[in-house]
Amino acid sequence: MKKSDITSIKLAPEGKKRIAWADKDMSVLQLIRSEFSKKKPLKGLTLAACLHVTTETANLMRTLRAGGAEVHLCAANPLSTNDAVAASLVKDHGIHVYARRGENNKVYYQHMMQNLDAKPHITMDDGGDQIHLLHTKRKELLNHVIGSTEETTTGVVRLQAMEREGALQIPVVAVNESKTKHMFDNRYGTGQSTMDGIIRATNVLLAGRVVVIAGYGWCGRGAAMRAAGLGARVIVTEVDAFKGLEAVMDGFEVKTMEQAAPEGDVFVTLTGNKHVIRGEHFKRMKDGAIVCNSGHFDIELNLKELKKLSKSKKLVRDFVEEFTLRGGRNIRVIGEGRLVNLVAADGHPASVMDMSFANQALAAEFIAKNHNRMKAAVHVLPEKLDRRIAELKLRSMKVGIDKLTPEQVKYMNTWKEGT
Amino acid sequence: MKKSDITSIKLAPEGKKRIAWADKDMSVLQLIRSEFSKKKPLKGLTLAACLHVTTETANLMRTLRAGGAEVHLCAANPLSTNDAVAASLVKDHGIHVYARRGENNKVYYQHMMQNLDAKPHITMDDGGDQIHLLHTKRKELLNHVIGSTEETTTGVVRLQAMEREGALQIPVVAVNESKTKHMFDNRYGTGQSTMDGIIRATNVLLAGRVVVIAGYGWCGRGAAMRAAGLGARVIVTEVDAFKGLEAVMDGFEVKTMEQAAPEGDVFVTLTGNKHVIRGEHFKRMKDGAIVCNSGHFDIELNLKELKKLSKSKKLVRDFVEEFTLRGGRNIRVIGEGRLVNLVAADGHPASVMDMSFANQALAAEFIAKNHNRMKAAVHVLPEKLDRRIAELKLRSMKVGIDKLTPEQVKYMNTWKEGT
Amino acid sequence: MKKSDITSIKLAPEGKKRIAWADKDMSVLQLIRSEFSKKKPLKGLTLAACLHVTTETANLMRTLRAGGAEVHLCAANPLSTNDAVAASLVKDHGIHVYARRGENNKVYYQHMMQNLDAKPHITMDDGGDQIHLLHTKRKELLNHVIGSTEETTTGVVRLQAMEREGALQIPVVAVNESKTKHMFDNRYGTGQSTMDGIIRATNVLLAGRVVVIAGYGWCGRGAAMRAAGLGARVIVTEVDAFKGLEAVMDGFEVKTMEQAAPEGDVFVTLTGNKHVIRGEHFKRMKDGAIVCNSGHFDIELNLKELKKLSKSKKLVRDFVEEFTLRGGRNIRVIGEGRLVNLVAADGHPASVMDMSFANQALAAEFIAKNHNRMKAAVHVLPEKLDRRIAELKLRSMKVGIDKLTPEQVKYMNTWKEGT
Amino acid sequence: MKKSDITSIKLAPEGKKRIAWADKDMSVLQLIRSEFSKKKPLKGLTLAACLHVTTETANLMRTLRAGGAEVHLCAANPLSTNDAVAASLVKDHGIHVYARRGENNKVYYQHMMQNLDAKPHITMDDGGDQIHLLHTKRKELLNHVIGSTEETTTGVVRLQAMEREGALQIPVVAVNESKTKHMFDNRYGTGQSTMDGIIRATNVLLAGRVVVIAGYGWCGRGAAMRAAGLGARVIVTEVDAFKGLEAVMDGFEVKTMEQAAPEGDVFVTLTGNKHVIRGEHFKRMKDGAIVCNSGHFDIELNLKELKKLSKSKKLVRDFVEEFTLRGGRNIRVIGEGRLVNLVAADGHPASVMDMSFANQALAAEFIAKNHNRMKAAVHVLPEKLDRRIAELKLRSMKVGIDKLTPEQVKYMNTWKEGT
Repeated sequence: MKKSDITSIKLAPEGKKRIAWADKDMSVLQLIRSEFSKKKPLKGLTLAACLHVTTETANLMRTLRAGGAEVHLCAANPLSTNDAVAASLVKDHGIHVYARRGENNKVYYQHMMQNLDAKPHITMDDGGDQIHLLHTKRKELLNHVIGSTEETTTGVVRLQAMEREGALQIPVVAVNESKTKHMFDNRYGTGQSTMDGIIRATNVLLAGRVVVIAGYGWCGRGAAMRAAGLGARVIVTEVDAFKGLEAVMDGFEVKTMEQAAPEGDVFVTLTGNKHVIRGEHFKRMKDGAIVCNSGHFDIELNLKELKKLSKSKKLVRDFVEEFTLRGGRNIRVIGEGRLVNLVAADGHPASVMDMSFANQALAAEFIAKNHNRMKAAVHVLPEKLDRRIAELKLRSMKVGIDKLTPEQVKYMNTWKEGT
Repeated sequence: MKKSDITSIKLAPEGKKRIAWADKDMSVLQLIRSEFSKKKPLKGLTLAACLHVTTETANLMRTLRAGGAEVHLCAANPLSTNDAVAASLVKDHGIHVYARRGENNKVYYQHMMQNLDAKPHITMDDGGDQIHLLHTKRKELLNHVIGSTEETTTGVVRLQAMEREGALQIPVVAVNESKTKHMFDNRYGTGQSTMDGIIRATNVLLAGRVVVIAGYGWCGRGAAMRAAGLGARVIVTEVDAFKGLEAVMDGFEVKTMEQAAPEGDVFVTLTGNKHVIRGEHFKRMKDGAIVCNSGHFDIELNLKELKKLSKSKKLVRDFVEEFTLRGGRNIRVIGEGRLVNLVAADGHPASVMDMSFANQALAAEFIAKNHNRMKAAVHVLPEKLDRRIAELKLRSMKVGIDKLTPEQVKYMNTWKEGT
Repeated sequence: MKKSDITSIKLAPEGKKRIAWADKDMSVLQLIRSEFSKKKPLKGLTLAACLHVTTETANLMRTLRAGGAEVHLCAANPLSTNDAVAASLVKDHGIHVYARRGENNKVYYQHMMQNLDAKPHITMDDGGDQIHLLHTKRKELLNHVIGSTEETTTGVVRLQAMEREGALQIPVVAVNESKTKHMFDNRYGTGQSTMDGIIRATNVLLAGRVVVIAGYGWCGRGAAMRAAGLGARVIVTEVDAFKGLEAVMDGFEVKTMEQAAPEGDVFVTLTGNKHVIRGEHFKRMKDGAIVCNSGHFDIELNLKELKKLSKSKKLVRDFVEEFTLRGGRNIRVIGEGRLVNLVAADGHPASVMDMSFANQALAAEFIAKNHNRMKAAVHVLPEKLDRRIAELKLRSMKVGIDKLTPEQVKYMNTWKEGT
Repeated sequence: MKKSDITSIKLAPEGKKRIAWADKDMSVLQLIRSEFSKKKPLKGLTLAACLHVTTETANLMRTLRAGGAEVHLCAANPLSTNDAVAASLVKDHGIHVYARRGENNKVYYQHMMQNLDAKPHITMDDGGDQIHLLHTKRKELLNHVIGSTEETTTGVVRLQAMEREGALQIPVVAVNESKTKHMFDNRYGTGQSTMDGIIRATNVLLAGRVVVIAGYGWCGRGAAMRAAGLGARVIVTEVDAFKGLEAVMDGFEVKTMEQAAPEGDVFVTLTGNKHVIRGEHFKRMKDGAIVCNSGHFDIELNLKELKKLSKSKKLVRDFVEEFTLRGGRNIRVIGEGRLVNLVAADGHPASVMDMSFANQALAAEFIAKNHNRMKAAVHVLPEKLDRRIAELKLRSMKVGIDKLTPEQVKYMNTWKEGT
């Protein structure tokens, strides 16, 4: 058996308690875990997951394990690991974990290598780093892999680029495309946890401040909605005319980043793209501006350019570095431009991850059953499974919805009834 | 030349003024009209449109006419015609109009027949009544038609049913599927105008009232958002688990209609389905409940069952009928269950119809150019045209958005950059 | 008996229906009316009310009449009279009415003179015009008057100025100071009805527009809240630092009118002050800007200066005049700068006027009972009466609140319990 | 010199950094500090403050010290002290501090005794515990005290009870009554920090949850507004009809606690009263309900009754105790019912405390200057000082407001201009 690599096994009791706490809000995943422990749909399979090592991920790992799989886990971001959770996964739940909070990029990739050393049948990704490694330095394992899953928008965009280029060698289920994933996790989860991360890191009062949200996709809409809900005045920047227009109609001010830079008190990027806030923008910001990122990778802020513009920087509060520009103004960057909700807060709340990870668990089962029929392409989970998750979630919240009457079903299928 | 059939040509001056007023908010359509008058893309074609005869429609008709078409127009609903607008279209703009506000169902269909008598090359529908007529009683004209367009969700659902059954004989562009249509018109347009219709008809204070919104599609979401924005407490009913869950997460209470019936002060249906509020629900409502519909057809409320439950009814305010149930409670129905925003208010504001009708105009041009390559099926306008409308709209509002840098374009197309 | 002066008695049936409709939402006033008809607290008294002649006022008049008073009524604004309501008050409810919609200023004051000719014991004012007349041209009546009431902020400000100068000769109950008046009518009533007036007059889509609200008192807060609730981006202007800061913290942009002028699509004044939007602001506005007032008097917009800047004006839609500036830009003014919610819509909904007019009725009773003990000063209705109105309103809405336990009552009165 | 009693002086560097961070958002207090260091208005005076030992309080202490005072500080709550801040105050800022996070009630009062041992001329309170001690066990010091200040609603209510009973022996400035205090700190500060405390303690997703807010005063309104802004459905409980009605009109559901108990997912009390949630309510709650308090004292929840109903309790997450009722359901209580925003988060953000503590500093100066003219009663800071704080705050945020024109000033003081 592979050795895990974690910060300290002694943290396991704290981790166990936290994992159990999160589980209480993950009723759909609980149900799937209970089914998995009876049916063992993953029996004989090895899974290598590269995900944020949080309490919610822990409950997914337990579910995969309950389904009969051997499970390996490394981090999807060097700063997002909860060490106590990692310890409990190893000690209490029989998972192999290679992740230490604050590991450097080199160790980050070593851990991923160790994860793949397990010779997985199925891999799980959040951002696509592991699948990239698999298709470059670890091609020898590709034959052994029957399928993969991908959690997030950024990863799906990478996979689609791979597919377009003909580089993709295995079938991948894009869990992000499930409605019960992106409509909830990306919007309500990212929305709340991004603001939570900013407040924990800075204790800034959002009421009366100008918050600039770069990107108005599902994540950006969630962040804009919550910033406004906390009393901020929100400016949105976009590159897409549809989304820009939607933001306008939602009552937000839409501007270019160049126009927004001198107005913002707090900036958040959620675009999935690179260098969205650059030197030319940092130069125009107010003294005291707070800048952070809630997109998957730490490339949305061009911090190299910020460093070049600065004469000094210092840590002024946990996770907050203050850069002093040559003109004297200060700009504060949270968590080195990594995901603010995972660096400075607890990531997405369990009740949305419940649905996202229910999709992951069902995607693993789906691959186990159907891999022979699946092309090397980006797949979506069948809507039937997606819908079942929504129905279970509503039931767990004791929310009733109507059923179509036979007359209504008939009506929806006819074209002959009109005025 | 066909004779028009309108209420009174004398109303033309008032209609002309109103059409000009709306035009000021329809900058995208203005631009297209200006292009059309140079390029005449519809030259030699006859169009028969079956749309709500409003000031905004008038500006679409002017645009089609500017494009070189002979244009005929009948109403898409017996109660939605603005007689002054109809008059001005005939007198000032050279359009053939067959529509009188308050016409009965028989006249409504006679007018549609007259509209089709023009032997159109292209038809335009809002709800699908005319295309239904074309495929049933006027099949002889089908050969002559090169394509059609459809404005609304309800019509698209009917067309999809036709296509599934193999009944659809001509290509149809589902304008509703354009993003610049359903994301804006259905949400912000229906949202505001529905509340406007309710307030004009009843002068009810929405603050502190319970508003029950049946359906959480684009229209229902708009209505729920605006009811809440006016201070109401909103209960949503749904039949779809995804949408139900979204409504819950948006902070609304989600219930079955049976549960909601005794709690609501105001009920609005926006489902596209039939008999959403039925006898079993009317029975449970509070004394004084206000009930209306903002879906396309007047079948969402089962008013026959309400009549059966009632001992009397009377008109208590323009457009408001009060039904007195046998137990003594009163239920007030607005506009006989027809589209409340068109019956009791002015319909969608011009600035959203600008985009919807820009889609209609471009769809007509698209059919004129491409009909030979189009199958008898439901088509969507190419995203390029849709996006151009969004860009023109933003420009007319003087809203700037960012452009992708070359580095960003490259990044979005690579899969090799990661952590 | 004095002759009434109204537009046409034939309109009475329509007015009767409308009055009855409003009454259904005025449950507190109904209760008071029922008590009044038993106790006749106003027996032998003559009342002269100068109020907006709306359906809600009609129900107050009926209540005063039920209390035993002889009741005379003239308008508080030349444009706010509903002629059908006036007719029904005369025909069906035994009220003397001197009011015609659209009367000019001269007739407006003639009507007020006729009203006072009744030699009232109690006068009721909305804005203070009648009490001003009483203290200037009709001083001979002052001895006969035992007290007055005033409905609105503007009037209270005038009365306070009178009191400061020693000019006030009679006791006045400032109904506006009751919590059940200004916290509800001014905020939720003005908020909804102002937006309603703007939408009816222009059919503008508020989503995505910039609405400039001048004044962040109770009325301005209501209007800002509703404009935002309809999707607008709101800019607030203020002269008071507390209110300006509150608006900022509520998430609105706060600017000077000079800064706001070039940004706004729609402007609304609700300040109670004079010439809040002036030539210097009109000059800076965008082409197509819509300007209106929802404060009591028509002096908040300096329309004289606008006229001077303009080369022409024309009526482009009912209630909307378009001024064309010499540079070519157009500015649209609704209802000649008079109260937009009364000019272009139905005024405040009945359910808030219920509380305001319950205060008026109880104020009349209070004066009848206590006038001997009341100084010539501005008085407030005792909180006990105010609170009773709130309790009755909650009960009519079937909303339950908690009662303090004996332990809690004791705790609130002790200072000895701490950490 | 008195010895301080703090957890560890070694924490000073972390505290210093945090104090400096908060100071950046306290521009009004900075300005006052700068004036104080020139004018030394508190020279020769000893101050004993009993406040939450936070970074913001630290900046107030620095300001008082800059004004020339000898300053002593103890905690206003056993759980609200930041030990690092306490250390830095002692080491870097010359303040005497008697406060350790988590001290028991006995030590809490010993510290307060030590604080008073300094023989203060002026005392500052948050909740009234120290002034209570002064009027009971330390009466001998009363002669020496020239005045006091009180920060919060709870303390003001206690002082008013003392004044009514004739027990109050010294003048007290009720800082809470300043507009720049209660309108901002209590609403926006408590609102954000209460939700922040709940999220940090539990990581619960608020979207889609039912949050029950007990009390709709300034604090409760803030909490309700923010819970709704984070996507929760809010139920409000009240004992006051005006506030209950306001909550209804603001779109919230208002119920008795008995009705709300089985519906809530999260409960927060902000009433200033005792035993607002009792055994009868705990009994009716859902499994998993989260309960906390954000009012000043830990008496709003009757945890004794909860213990009696429970068969066991355990700590399931930092600050969260889970009580298992005899029927098996679990109820989770945060921070033993103490102020959730101080126990589980960082308390109010600096930018609102800026204004509250500007009031405290000016109140101390006011007492120093005017104590000879002040009766032993509850006083309010002159509006002029309050308004100056608002103006300075706006200026620091670079927000411009309008100035009244001479014509407007005149208009506001005349009663002769009307229709």
